[in-house]
Amino acid sequence: MPGTVQSIERAAAILRMLAGGPGRLGLSEIARALDLAKGTTHGILRTLQGVGFVEQDRVSGQYQLGAALLHLGTSYLDINELRSRSINWADPLAARSGEAVRIGTVLQGQVLVVHHVFRPDDTFQTLDVGTLLPLHATALGKVLLAYRAGSPRDELTAYTRKTLVTPRDIGAALDRIREHGWAADIEEHTLGQAAVAAPIRGYGGLVIGAIGVSGPVERICDSHYRPHPHLITSVRDAARAISREMGAARQ
Amino acid sequence: MPGTVQSIERAAAILRMLAGGPGRLGLSEIARALDLAKGTTHGILRTLQGVGFVEQDRVSGQYQLGAALLHLGTSYLDINELRSRSINWADPLAARSGEAVRIGTVLQGQVLVVHHVFRPDDTFQTLDVGTLLPLHATALGKVLLAYRAGSPRDELTAYTRKTLVTPRDIGAALDRIREHGWAADIEEHTLGQAAVAAPIRGYGGLVIGAIGVSGPVERICDSHYRPHPHLITSVRDAARAISREMGAARQ
Repeated sequence: MPGTVQSIERAAAILRMLAGGPGRLGLSEIARALDLAKGTTHGILRTLQGVGFVEQDRVSGQYQLGAALLHLGTSYLDINELRSRSINWADPLAARSGEAVRIGTVLQGQVLVVHHVFRPDDTFQTLDVGTLLPLHATALGKVLLAYRAGSPRDELTAYTRKTLVTPRDIGAALDRIREHGWAADIEEHTLGQAAVAAPIRGYGGLVIGAIGVSGPVERICDSHYRPHPHLITSVRDAARAISREMGAARQ
Repeated sequence: MPGTVQSIERAAAILRMLAGGPGRLGLSEIARALDLAKGTTHGILRTLQGVGFVEQDRVSGQYQLGAALLHLGTSYLDINELRSRSINWADPLAARSGEAVRIGTVLQGQVLVVHHVFRPDDTFQTLDVGTLLPLHATALGKVLLAYRAGSPRDELTAYTRKTLVTPRDIGAALDRIREHGWAADIEEHTLGQAAVAAPIRGYGGLVIGAIGVSGPVERICDSHYRPHPHLITSVRDAARAISREMGAARQ
């Protein structure tokens, strides 16, 4: 991109590497992976350490992500309009459906979960906010793909035997999603799990996110392995309500 | 700092500004606040936008924090050793005390909450993970100050009439904390709220964090306005258990 600042791009690449890897990396590994001189890499790491974006382990000397990123990440959530306007609709959707609700948006070819309401029971659940999910293998992601809010990454991983991985299968699925206005993922990402999602539109009708319910396939689907119609209706109603709040015209 | 990269420091300053402000800022405001030329500021903002660290509002043209920061922030949590080793002790502490449990570490002169277990009842509570608290006005913060894990910022805000703001009062309080091994905050940060905290030590005995319980003052304190001894014991036991997991010698 013309007019961009190379050292900031390199710093961002280092942070992505630390987020994607085993947690801690040494100077040489980082320099090698980014094809940079050790001196250049060290200067960037020292600067990132100075601003709290990376920390250096005292014992091993390896680098890891720093605490300042946690505060920036939660500040992003505080000002995220999609999330703040969705919260009032996500809780009732979880209560009515009896399932977990997640709201996602596109980040670099993946779905970023920006809000997660636990399934309303007392079972142990892990907060998915901040998690990245594949576009082509989840209901949230397929909605975002269908309405061109994102493009998939190059490799289409087959998470289960049901994951759609060929351009033809995905193209046909996206046509159906646009025709019906909702997407399902039935054991395409995780065995035994299913989900239903619908698009959230913003100003001008542009799709800016997706909301969906997810849970065990035997609860999300009927005996024909199709999502229960009442779940589809609830998800679409919530999506339309949030879209109106986000400035989309009535659909 | 010698050998650091100026453009990365400026980028970090912009992100901190966006996190600390009203949410969205225009190019001119950012350039003015950082005393930079508009062209320089625009180049940094474009680059931050390219890597997903800032987003530009379509309608107003203003800048806000970007989605990539959320993923980096939650990745920091995933690899944070203090948090991962504390989780198993924080849940039982909340169950035993009946109060909310928080674990904090120092970030730039403040307490960064890295873990939060809700009070075990069904009341509405907001997740504090990623929140920044003042060092001088909270039990977690005073523990971190007492063991020199952090230094307070220049201005010591009086949040209530009980907040300690003079160097003399704070000095005396820190002496007592070091003598007894725990800190209390009784309506020093929020009216009606109280807290008890104890230090978490890491390798070599260095204090690297604090764990504490907090809740309504009438539950945390007895009729003499002092924390219940059983809460102090529970907090200190949990802090010692986590310290051992973090590599500190038995105390």
